[in-house]
Amino acid sequence: MKITPQVKQILENYEADNAATKNNLARLLMQGKLAGTGKLLILPVDQGVEHGPARSFAANPEAYDPHYHYKLAIDAGLSAYAAPLGALECGAFTYGDQIPTILKLNNANSLNDIKNQAITGSVKEAVRLGCIGIGYTIYPGSDHCYEQINILQDIIREAKEAGLISIVWSYPRGGPFLEKVDETAVDVCAYGAHIAAQLGAHIIKVKPPSDHLCLGAAKKVYEEQEIDISTLVKRTQHIMQAAFAGRRLVLFSGGEPTDEENLFQTFQNLNDGGASGAIIGRNIFQRKREEALAILEKVTNIFNQQS
Amino acid sequence: MKITPQVKQILENYEADNAATKNNLARLLMQGKLAGTGKLLILPVDQGVEHGPARSFAANPEAYDPHYHYKLAIDAGLSAYAAPLGALECGAFTYGDQIPTILKLNNANSLNDIKNQAITGSVKEAVRLGCIGIGYTIYPGSDHCYEQINILQDIIREAKEAGLISIVWSYPRGGPFLEKVDETAVDVCAYGAHIAAQLGAHIIKVKPPSDHLCLGAAKKVYEEQEIDISTLVKRTQHIMQAAFAGRRLVLFSGGEPTDEENLFQTFQNLNDGGASGAIIGRNIFQRKREEALAILEKVTNIFNQQS
Amino acid sequence: MKITPQVKQILENYEADNAATKNNLARLLMQGKLAGTGKLLILPVDQGVEHGPARSFAANPEAYDPHYHYKLAIDAGLSAYAAPLGALECGAFTYGDQIPTILKLNNANSLNDIKNQAITGSVKEAVRLGCIGIGYTIYPGSDHCYEQINILQDIIREAKEAGLISIVWSYPRGGPFLEKVDETAVDVCAYGAHIAAQLGAHIIKVKPPSDHLCLGAAKKVYEEQEIDISTLVKRTQHIMQAAFAGRRLVLFSGGEPTDEENLFQTFQNLNDGGASGAIIGRNIFQRKREEALAILEKVTNIFNQQS
Amino acid sequence: MKITPQVKQILENYEADNAATKNNLARLLMQGKLAGTGKLLILPVDQGVEHGPARSFAANPEAYDPHYHYKLAIDAGLSAYAAPLGALECGAFTYGDQIPTILKLNNANSLNDIKNQAITGSVKEAVRLGCIGIGYTIYPGSDHCYEQINILQDIIREAKEAGLISIVWSYPRGGPFLEKVDETAVDVCAYGAHIAAQLGAHIIKVKPPSDHLCLGAAKKVYEEQEIDISTLVKRTQHIMQAAFAGRRLVLFSGGEPTDEENLFQTFQNLNDGGASGAIIGRNIFQRKREEALAILEKVTNIFNQQS
Amino acid sequence: MKITPQVKQILENYEADNAATKNNLARLLMQGKLAGTGKLLILPVDQGVEHGPARSFAANPEAYDPHYHYKLAIDAGLSAYAAPLGALECGAFTYGDQIPTILKLNNANSLNDIKNQAITGSVKEAVRLGCIGIGYTIYPGSDHCYEQINILQDIIREAKEAGLISIVWSYPRGGPFLEKVDETAVDVCAYGAHIAAQLGAHIIKVKPPSDHLCLGAAKKVYEEQEIDISTLVKRTQHIMQAAFAGRRLVLFSGGEPTDEENLFQTFQNLNDGGASGAIIGRNIFQRKREEALAILEKVTNIFNQQS
Repeated sequence: MKITPQVKQILENYEADNAATKNNLARLLMQGKLAGTGKLLILPVDQGVEHGPARSFAANPEAYDPHYHYKLAIDAGLSAYAAPLGALECGAFTYGDQIPTILKLNNANSLNDIKNQAITGSVKEAVRLGCIGIGYTIYPGSDHCYEQINILQDIIREAKEAGLISIVWSYPRGGPFLEKVDETAVDVCAYGAHIAAQLGAHIIKVKPPSDHLCLGAAKKVYEEQEIDISTLVKRTQHIMQAAFAGRRLVLFSGGEPTDEENLFQTFQNLNDGGASGAIIGRNIFQRKREEALAILEKVTNIFNQQS
Repeated sequence: MKITPQVKQILENYEADNAATKNNLARLLMQGKLAGTGKLLILPVDQGVEHGPARSFAANPEAYDPHYHYKLAIDAGLSAYAAPLGALECGAFTYGDQIPTILKLNNANSLNDIKNQAITGSVKEAVRLGCIGIGYTIYPGSDHCYEQINILQDIIREAKEAGLISIVWSYPRGGPFLEKVDETAVDVCAYGAHIAAQLGAHIIKVKPPSDHLCLGAAKKVYEEQEIDISTLVKRTQHIMQAAFAGRRLVLFSGGEPTDEENLFQTFQNLNDGGASGAIIGRNIFQRKREEALAILEKVTNIFNQQS
Repeated sequence: MKITPQVKQILENYEADNAATKNNLARLLMQGKLAGTGKLLILPVDQGVEHGPARSFAANPEAYDPHYHYKLAIDAGLSAYAAPLGALECGAFTYGDQIPTILKLNNANSLNDIKNQAITGSVKEAVRLGCIGIGYTIYPGSDHCYEQINILQDIIREAKEAGLISIVWSYPRGGPFLEKVDETAVDVCAYGAHIAAQLGAHIIKVKPPSDHLCLGAAKKVYEEQEIDISTLVKRTQHIMQAAFAGRRLVLFSGGEPTDEENLFQTFQNLNDGGASGAIIGRNIFQRKREEALAILEKVTNIFNQQS
Repeated sequence: MKITPQVKQILENYEADNAATKNNLARLLMQGKLAGTGKLLILPVDQGVEHGPARSFAANPEAYDPHYHYKLAIDAGLSAYAAPLGALECGAFTYGDQIPTILKLNNANSLNDIKNQAITGSVKEAVRLGCIGIGYTIYPGSDHCYEQINILQDIIREAKEAGLISIVWSYPRGGPFLEKVDETAVDVCAYGAHIAAQLGAHIIKVKPPSDHLCLGAAKKVYEEQEIDISTLVKRTQHIMQAAFAGRRLVLFSGGEPTDEENLFQTFQNLNDGGASGAIIGRNIFQRKREEALAILEKVTNIFNQQS
Repeated sequence: MKITPQVKQILENYEADNAATKNNLARLLMQGKLAGTGKLLILPVDQGVEHGPARSFAANPEAYDPHYHYKLAIDAGLSAYAAPLGALECGAFTYGDQIPTILKLNNANSLNDIKNQAITGSVKEAVRLGCIGIGYTIYPGSDHCYEQINILQDIIREAKEAGLISIVWSYPRGGPFLEKVDETAVDVCAYGAHIAAQLGAHIIKVKPPSDHLCLGAAKKVYEEQEIDISTLVKRTQHIMQAAFAGRRLVLFSGGEPTDEENLFQTFQNLNDGGASGAIIGRNIFQRKREEALAILEKVTNIFNQQS
């Protein structure tokens, strides 16, 4: 594995990590069709837990089988496959040497409405399954967010000691200030990205920000400083800025399931704004395999462009 | 112990487990009259804690004695006997080499109405008692479910390290969405099975699902995707699908105490739908021993059919 | 110490315990005037914490001194003396070789009305003080009961590893179903005994059950199955049945302070019903020493009868 | 250090402690002007945390300096100096060999009104600072008291293993039964002393009890048993009785800041009632040094009398 | 590094610390333009987490990059740079040998209004990053303050064992007594400083106190004892007194962003009152670099004066 200059530059931003962690990050960045570009495309499949199996997989029943996702991620030349414990255990031996995996360590479910997540895995299990890293979701704003961060802090420390990378899904949600519409407000998304960066995340996952502003004190600054949030390209640049001026990799979701045209336009804008890539699940695995592969091909090509 | 092709195929679905765990799973699948068929029939006796001793055993007073259940399970040629700590301690030496045992690690009781369970055993004690695995109940939907899952996560990790298998009783219950009738709604049962699978359960216990649908967002999908839930056979197939497309063993209860005809019909349907077997308690030990043995013989024959 | 057949038979019911634990149980059963009979008479003194010192000891001021109780238990030829940490520390060297001791690990106090207990000792301290076992109270039914059981589970595991026996005071109390009168309802007492047995208690402490029935679903069963609860003898038999058909030792309190006649009648009935003995405190140490010794002599004689 | 008969007799009451702990207790009893008498006079200075620095020290600004208290305790020939971590750290090297110190491990503050205390030190730090023991406050009656006792139980176990003595400030407070006036009710003080004794405290700190009675069930007993609580001497005797018939050392505070006459009268009564000595803070360090030394001289003389 | 008499005198106040901790404190006091003066000027940058990235950095976008702050602190000749985990990780290798760093271990955020902070780092990570110490914020008065102090107590113990210094941001806030205006009341600030000192902080951070008094019982004492709080110089002296009569280093913030004139006047008063220096963030990094350097130069000169 010959590391490209783009990847080398990225790795230099993680100067305080140990060799094992940097090697795992390098392995991720040198995987699949985007290998060496500094961009990442990751397939996450935890929607079965979060929304229920039928809502997640009935549209494409092959997707009930965890092997399906391993194969899809490999065949599409993605950077990695992220899933909870049970699903990774189904294929960790069969496919473990063909694609990097991320163990998602917490998950919500839709059988209740608590603004929190349950711990569903551990760093030790990520090590046991040969994963390159762990994933963890926080809900900044929620009444549970400090408790979630307390736990994440332990996980990140343990992961770094074990040479694993940490991906933080930073989804502001709940609490006294955030309505549904505020969860993708650009000030809130930027704030979420910054919090994750400060917590020691190697990679941050956020949603594509809207041009809405939520927090009063922030709104005033955006107006006074004339921060341009008029286009998704500009908003993406702002998010990257919030993530230590681009020193941290930030991946974006494709948002709610949508038509292909919108999806490609979103990713084009994200790439033009300097996004590090994407984590896309439902928009992929709820489509038939061939259709999904074709979409991933196009998304790969989008992120393969210089941004 | 010569493993059959059916058992070999099942064990391949547990590719990430260590040899000790896979050996314990093999031992379970090669026990009793269903040995080698890939099907399981387990006797669980924790109703004394859950409902009180008289409600559980007065109808068949011999059943007050923990030895009774060990002997019944052995004589009926069952796959395993599952019980809480105290009951297993009574016979772990006398009968421990004649039947695999499962230590149930948590239990509710009917002296309060909290939608939670108390921890009543540990992985260390399961090891000490020579059990092949542990059992644990979660109530997805309950206000306590994230806390229950957090604890289960630790238990599953510790059990796997110790070479034990994990059986998760996944009983959705409580919270803002689930009424009594919803606890066996097919979308809810499928969801419960999927959660348990993702948590790393080797074997999942659910109730036979009704044709009711509970969660709004799920109901829409069942209708749009025309998921056939009209018969218990179809619903069972759906549950198996939700358990990683059949990669995880799913056992069903016989439901509330009922007459024999209903019971056999239920198990026939479950078997036809591809169920991995059953965990039946009250329908067995609340009947006289000879009657119970006769029923277990018939249930064994049902699951002995190719499904 | 030559173990009698009665004691040998009891020890066989504890087949899963290690040698150290069984030796401690044997030591208890071979102590005092009831040595070898399979019956036990234990003096517990934690009422100072539970009710306050004056309410406990002012009627017999010698009893303020922890040495008093050690001496009383020894001179009366009792099986053991049970008390909290501080009291045992006062005499563990002076009297430790003359009578087995039980360290009570939790206690309530009457300065508040929380239906819970504080942890006041540990297995490590029981080992340090040369105790043969530990005691712990649970309030099944209370809002705190699952938390109490979670802690007890750890204690029982640690105690068994350390070769100590565990005595569980199972006192149903609190929660939505139990009024004061229900705390001694026979279905509730039987339920409490069964829970303690399932938790791994070697010895269970309950109160003498009344002929009251509390829980609706249980009441139905008692009527349908025509369980005879008309006399204390019958009710005692029922409690023993609930404790694994007599495989666990069950000790009864003498109840609220009462006159001698009632006390003896109660113990006669308990013995006739197969009780394993008694744990009596206030009825003893609140009387003058000579009177107390005389009562204990009579109670010893009652339990010395074949039951 | 030649131990006197009085001290030897006291040490015999701590027969279950290890040599290191007994040596530390001996060291305390053989220190200062009361050395060998079996009486103790300890200077506690945690009022800065509990009431704020100005309320504590402005009346005598030299007292802002932690060295001041070390020197005062040494020069007055006291038995020990007790303070939180920060204050002890200021002089542990300079004065550590001249006077025994007690690390206070928890403290409340007056910036909130929660009936609880924060943990402000640990047994490990007491060892690191060369202290002979630790101090800890409980509020029996408070909603937090069981939690406070749970923590204390761990601390006492750890302290005893480390050879340190434990002093428990037992201040009943809060909850449904205790009004301000009840906190010094004689039944409540006696109850507090007994709880601390049972928790394994070597030394118990209480407030001088008033002749008020609080708890209904206790009041009945005080009247029936005609317990004499008419004078502070009698009440002190009663407190000592509640502390294992005098087997535990009980120290009293001087109460709220008051004039010298009252203070001396209080201590005379306490001594006449058999108190083991006093822990006095505000009445000392809020006065000018020379005045404080004069008072301490007189209090020393009071406790030097045979009681 | 030749330690000056001023620094030597300060180090003597930390007589109970181990050599590693004292060396780290010495390293801090011998760094930058104030080296050897006994005064400190520290740049803290955690406002991105506390207020959001745009509110913190949009006014000077270079400040989005964590390297900017490292360089600013180095070029200005400051004593240290303090930041959360993520930011320090970005420059710990590049700049780690040029300036001492402090890892801030907890942080609030403005997406909720809970009066608490999340744990965002650990002593182990401070060691891994080569920091000389850790920082931690408490909110005395808040409902969470005892829980915050419990955690801090563990951190301080662990930090001292690891040879790190501890800086406590003591910001009274919340609870039943403190309105916004009370947070800087002089009695409250003095109280906050004293609590931090007692908790074992090496360095205490407070806000410049106003002449407001908050707590009733304290107000009475300030009036009776005629404590002079009429000027910031006097109030600063009072704060230093509350911090163990000057035995602990106390640093002050510059308060809310303000104009330069006010800022310099504040620092002049603080220095005249004996403050140990300042921790200033927003007033620095929200200005352009050259302007910030000019201000820091002036502030350095102020604290370089004998106070």
